Amino acid sequence: MAQHAGTIAAAMPAGRSGGREGRRAERSGPRPVARAPWIRRGIPPYDILSEDNLCRIEAAADRILWETGIEFRDDPPALEHWRRAGAVVDGVRVRFPPGLLREILSSAPAEFVQHARNPANSVRIGGDNVVFAPAYGSPFVMDLDRGRRFGTLEDFRNFVRLAQSYPWFHHSGGTICEPTDIPVNKRHLDMVLAHLTLSDRPFLGSVTAESRAEDSIEMARIVFGHDFVEANCVIMGNVNVNSPLVWDGTLTRSLRAYARANQGVIVVPFILGGAMGPVTTAGAIAQSLAETMAGCALAQLERPGAPVVFGNFLSSMALRSGAPTFGTPEPAVGSLVVGQLCRRLRLPLRCSGNFTTSKLPDAQAMTEGTMSMLAAIHCGANYILHAAGFLDGLLSMSYEKFVLDADLCGALHAYLAGVTVDDSHLAVEAFAEVGPGNHFFGCSHTLAHYQSAFWDSETADNDPFEKWEAGGALDAARRAHAIWKRRLRDFEPPPIDAGLSEALADFVARRKASMEDMWY
Amino acid sequence: MAQHAGTIAAAMPAGRSGGREGRRAERSGPRPVARAPWIRRGIPPYDILSEDNLCRIEAAADRILWETGIEFRDDPPALEHWRRAGAVVDGVRVRFPPGLLREILSSAPAEFVQHARNPANSVRIGGDNVVFAPAYGSPFVMDLDRGRRFGTLEDFRNFVRLAQSYPWFHHSGGTICEPTDIPVNKRHLDMVLAHLTLSDRPFLGSVTAESRAEDSIEMARIVFGHDFVEANCVIMGNVNVNSPLVWDGTLTRSLRAYARANQGVIVVPFILGGAMGPVTTAGAIAQSLAETMAGCALAQLERPGAPVVFGNFLSSMALRSGAPTFGTPEPAVGSLVVGQLCRRLRLPLRCSGNFTTSKLPDAQAMTEGTMSMLAAIHCGANYILHAAGFLDGLLSMSYEKFVLDADLCGALHAYLAGVTVDDSHLAVEAFAEVGPGNHFFGCSHTLAHYQSAFWDSETADNDPFEKWEAGGALDAARRAHAIWKRRLRDFEPPPIDAGLSEALADFVARRKASMEDMWY
Repeated sequence: MAQHAGTIAAAMPAGRSGGREGRRAERSGPRPVARAPWIRRGIPPYDILSEDNLCRIEAAADRILWETGIEFRDDPPALEHWRRAGAVVDGVRVRFPPGLLREILSSAPAEFVQHARNPANSVRIGGDNVVFAPAYGSPFVMDLDRGRRFGTLEDFRNFVRLAQSYPWFHHSGGTICEPTDIPVNKRHLDMVLAHLTLSDRPFLGSVTAESRAEDSIEMARIVFGHDFVEANCVIMGNVNVNSPLVWDGTLTRSLRAYARANQGVIVVPFILGGAMGPVTTAGAIAQSLAETMAGCALAQLERPGAPVVFGNFLSSMALRSGAPTFGTPEPAVGSLVVGQLCRRLRLPLRCSGNFTTSKLPDAQAMTEGTMSMLAAIHCGANYILHAAGFLDGLLSMSYEKFVLDADLCGALHAYLAGVTVDDSHLAVEAFAEVGPGNHFFGCSHTLAHYQSAFWDSETADNDPFEKWEAGGALDAARRAHAIWKRRLRDFEPPPIDAGLSEALADFVARRKASMEDMWY
Repeated sequence: MAQHAGTIAAAMPAGRSGGREGRRAERSGPRPVARAPWIRRGIPPYDILSEDNLCRIEAAADRILWETGIEFRDDPPALEHWRRAGAVVDGVRVRFPPGLLREILSSAPAEFVQHARNPANSVRIGGDNVVFAPAYGSPFVMDLDRGRRFGTLEDFRNFVRLAQSYPWFHHSGGTICEPTDIPVNKRHLDMVLAHLTLSDRPFLGSVTAESRAEDSIEMARIVFGHDFVEANCVIMGNVNVNSPLVWDGTLTRSLRAYARANQGVIVVPFILGGAMGPVTTAGAIAQSLAETMAGCALAQLERPGAPVVFGNFLSSMALRSGAPTFGTPEPAVGSLVVGQLCRRLRLPLRCSGNFTTSKLPDAQAMTEGTMSMLAAIHCGANYILHAAGFLDGLLSMSYEKFVLDADLCGALHAYLAGVTVDDSHLAVEAFAEVGPGNHFFGCSHTLAHYQSAFWDSETADNDPFEKWEAGGALDAARRAHAIWKRRLRDFEPPPIDAGLSEALADFVARRKASMEDMWY
């Protein structure tokens, strides 16, 4: 009878993480929540463009691919793939006959499972499924006490712990912040180790060099076994296009390493309108479509059937200064179009996140972040990277914003569930019971639905003004500050087999010993 | 060729207000904007429920109306209307045979114009049109310097001035804050006078007593002339249901006064789920539909064809304390359903606004406010009251939040414009011109579109961290503080004929002299 009522995917059997969350909830107030390995959406995506206009954008992408083409630099095997597939290769420039990429992409799965170390945390990516992951790639971290500073490995670990402490993330993410105290060529080992030991959720490996991609995959093999990895996605790499219209060999070699191992690749152009692409949204979307299709298709040429995710990252600029801007309206509404185009390709979508250029976890941060995050929700994104922590145009991970964003992710679980329409929720009998002018507080319908009725925020203050004032008149950022400190203090890592833990540490030590330190 | 590209409705001819905005823009940085009397949406509303489920909600509303009914207290003429229309009247309880209200509502216009004192500012309400108005009804005001205090007439005037100073509001609103220094029975005169002299946009009159509604309409007649008012909507009243299922005579008499004068009525149930309605969203929506249809139909019985607006105000509660909450996910997604139901009635919609329970213009305020405001945008609301200033569950108007919200209203102009798809915006030639790996900064396509490409925020800081730090490291609320002070300092009232101004002042003086002061 009920329709469009989303379900939070099967609650985890009484695992330690879920149990711990339940216990914390009792202590600090909020009702216990069912742990959600991922969300299955109960509301449809938001389609804003007509079929006609979608076809126009696709035709523009096809013309860009054929008339201008894309350069694949420093990766001869990629050029060889394109030659064999029927593209026109001229030096490093590749031109794609219309239809070629769509044909190649037909081998890519519309949905796939990324397995987690804890099988209860495996996620399904694509279709009606939504997966939240922390932000990715900041050199700095910030908190209200210590201000801005370069990220360290301990900061990185803290963010893995924080994410793991919430039921609202389904994925541990990747380079949550740069651990700048570790040599550039060894960071990936420590990051993957942290994801595999401090979290038991799926995660992203390194893409900054083919060898680092392979190290990441090798560590996953230690955990999952060689044969399982050969047949299943257990790790993904997030690779960026050098927009406009350039694929750098460092990235395509990493992309091919993941695909070769049958692991997931997220392909993401980063288009700052007016700089790396046209200043008009439709043009930036056409470009993004061209670049992403080419990247996803290259993964299919490397290994047909390897999981790929159609990624997108539109942004805008401040017209007075040329500075990049994030969380602005044009990319938000543009994301809705990207979602429509991606569904026509039948590929899983990564889009948007909680973007902002604010330097503090303030009103600007959450205006921009909420607009941007809702665009991800509405456009039908299946994998939402940057769902928490993003500050200052991704230059900083903020501890407090992480907490505020995590809370928004929780709220979006309720939002994505949609509106349940059945006799019990329509409550017609309750009106007869209560009658005009009387309140619903104690009526049987309220008692029956009370526990599950409304999202219960961890960070919002809903108290009367006087009580809030008596409690110190804290703003949301200050409350978030106390929350992340408590969450880190209370953190217990998920259980891991001692032998496995040792094998991973041993691999990391061995690989580190085999290389000189590189600092840039 | 272009489709779904929204247009900001015809720019105002070089009126003083528009010109002033243009000049201010040059001084303080942002590019001049076309003054928008209202927005015509370039993106469709977001439909989330199936036809089946919409029919189920409508059937539930019909059952509530027939089985439980609605009480119309202290308004015998309203009961007489219902009796004559074919409803079953038992004491003050009215039961409505299924289909009766829909039939009565067929005389209500799907769209109408509310005329402004400055004809260039008249707005169209209904259809694809969107009108923003400030928040309504707070007893307190707040700013960062002086904290919270009771609102005064000077505060009220300040908010009228602030709204008028922005191109992003299309309507001056109503009781923006309570002028608590003025007797309860005389406030409406000062408020209407302020709307008619400090603003030249459309506005709302009083509804707190039939005589105050009539005073408000009479003041409008002084400005527009009796005959014009008889034939056109120049003022509206926003009337609340005493949910659940009670219409108070004070409000229905005001409602009938507006309708009788052929003026607009906005009919709004305020349903705090679990208190004034069921704790389940579908039930609250069914109730809201029943209550709103009854109110709008009563206006039609008073005068068929009088403009009515289908209003909605869903909210939730904190399950641990029973405190009301605003800007939460369930009402946001519920609003999308309300929009679908309203379109099936072919009535203009008022829904949502920038809601929050936060006590400060902080991260909580704008997370909740942005989610709530986007719900208004997505659900297809035509008249968005509470678009700026709402704080602490509507107990306070905040000067700083007003500025932040106004800026969001500006951003939503860009959002609602949607994505323009035509050859010029698709920019295919620009790719050939720029080529792979090069930037778009100086290319001819960028130069051609640069000026109009992106929304230019007044409050966001997009500068590099170091520049922001050198500028005082202000958060958004502090920046907003400086902005409202500057806007009030620079304010010049729109021109008004001296005779008109005198006639209004004279009416106010006469009416005030005719009554004893009432303070509660």
